[in-house]
Amino acid sequence: MRRTRFDTAPCPIARTTDLIGDWWTPLVLREACSGVRRFDDFQQRLDIPRASLTARLDRLVDDGLLRREQYQDHPVRHEYRLTRKGAEFYPVLAAMWRWGSDWLFDADGDGSADPTRAGVPFQLVDVGSGAEVRPLVVDETTGDPIDVRRVRLRRRSPRPAP
Amino acid sequence: MRRTRFDTAPCPIARTTDLIGDWWTPLVLREACSGVRRFDDFQQRLDIPRASLTARLDRLVDDGLLRREQYQDHPVRHEYRLTRKGAEFYPVLAAMWRWGSDWLFDADGDGSADPTRAGVPFQLVDVGSGAEVRPLVVDETTGDPIDVRRVRLRRRSPRPAP
Repeated sequence: MRRTRFDTAPCPIARTTDLIGDWWTPLVLREACSGVRRFDDFQQRLDIPRASLTARLDRLVDDGLLRREQYQDHPVRHEYRLTRKGAEFYPVLAAMWRWGSDWLFDADGDGSADPTRAGVPFQLVDVGSGAEVRPLVVDETTGDPIDVRRVRLRRRSPRPAP
Repeated sequence: MRRTRFDTAPCPIARTTDLIGDWWTPLVLREACSGVRRFDDFQQRLDIPRASLTARLDRLVDDGLLRREQYQDHPVRHEYRLTRKGAEFYPVLAAMWRWGSDWLFDADGDGSADPTRAGVPFQLVDVGSGAEVRPLVVDETTGDPIDVRRVRLRRRSPRPAP
């Protein structure tokens, strides 16, 4: 059964959903962002069925987030490397990381956020300083954290002819 | 066919994928973040099959992102309101918005990002100033944009006993 497609929707969230709604795809991208390049390494780290992995990698190549490069001649072998489009998806994964860390590792089961995130077995760290990285989504212009109560959607005005 | 579940995975990205991999779910949340509360309004705005919408709303209630509240007695009617957990998911949608705007509205078809985003028919604006909001994922501590080349994963050290 093919699901409803959102890839031509007018909303960027809908189009992005079309991609990451392919279930394993965010995890394939997570591994690519961790430096994984080879089919067998993706397969072993994710314990994903080979046919599912092939389908996800093919789509990510078709959509321009990964590029397939030959690294060996005899026999021919390829690896998958992040493009700039793929690398720039990492902040979306980072935002998912933050929300998931805050809300989906509820040690005391009371449904509230755990500010210590003590139940999360991993952390993101800066490769230079070793300090923990805590992703936060802000408005690029003002630096203010994005708050659902302060944002609304507006139809973009057509540009005047030059 | 039930898909592989990631909701008890050790990685926050995997757990979040389990939720948003339910395909329509990011769009149901998008509408909830735009103030939609009633079943028929979700249904009409998304043009989603009623059974699919029921399943998504039930899961979002079970997972604590929405709460069901009775707003009418005769006949009994409920609406769905964002909890704090649900409202805090909005930055993830905002990060998806940004990446989708930058990369999935490629007017000239050359696969590069379009800095003008002229092809995106909507924009996010601040309710107070009316200025365009451009979501950006940064490190909360340093304010630096999240860059895949500067972040790695580390197992969290166990805390010393107090």
